[in-house]
Amino acid sequence: MFAALADTSRRSMVERLSRGPASVKELAAPLPMSLPGVLQHLQVLETSGLVRSQKVGRVRTFQLEPVALQAAEQWIADRRAGWAHRLDRLGDFLSEEEI
Amino acid sequence: MFAALADTSRRSMVERLSRGPASVKELAAPLPMSLPGVLQHLQVLETSGLVRSQKVGRVRTFQLEPVALQAAEQWIADRRAGWAHRLDRLGDFLSEEEI
Repeated sequence: MFAALADTSRRSMVERLSRGPASVKELAAPLPMSLPGVLQHLQVLETSGLVRSQKVGRVRTFQLEPVALQAAEQWIADRRAGWAHRLDRLGDFLSEEEI
Repeated sequence: MFAALADTSRRSMVERLSRGPASVKELAAPLPMSLPGVLQHLQVLETSGLVRSQKVGRVRTFQLEPVALQAAEQWIADRRAGWAHRLDRLGDFLSEEEI
């Protein structure tokens, strides 16, 4: 998931999809990139689980998968929480030392 | 930052550092990797801003940089919030339609 988010073009696709589902064409429009390039990035995003797609007729529409985004967010939050907790304990220890 | 987190070894280093600062040796111990390999990963993490290091005598100690972790977390949270907001509006719209 982090590998999928490590690319600027893919982050801009996620950014676009956070405002609602979009077709391949809509996702490709703002990007200075060939359609095959766009499709490759979308495949990486879909394999990572961050987006999913649905084909209706000839149009494939992509949308965010919030559960996967939440998992990535949670991983970072947990690491940060461990660190914050440790700093709190250090703070407690230092206050006790002062007394 | 996401590129830095896209590697399993680097994530395990961040995991370790979330429990407190550690020396290069301590970070290398659980990893099946040469010291130069570990140093290279630590350099990627430091360049990304996710960790910082300090050298005292001959020992370099690494620690997490919670502000950078928070920035990565916030980016994901914002994308997810946009999507959630959109789903809420869709929910509102559908409820109104029902009435």
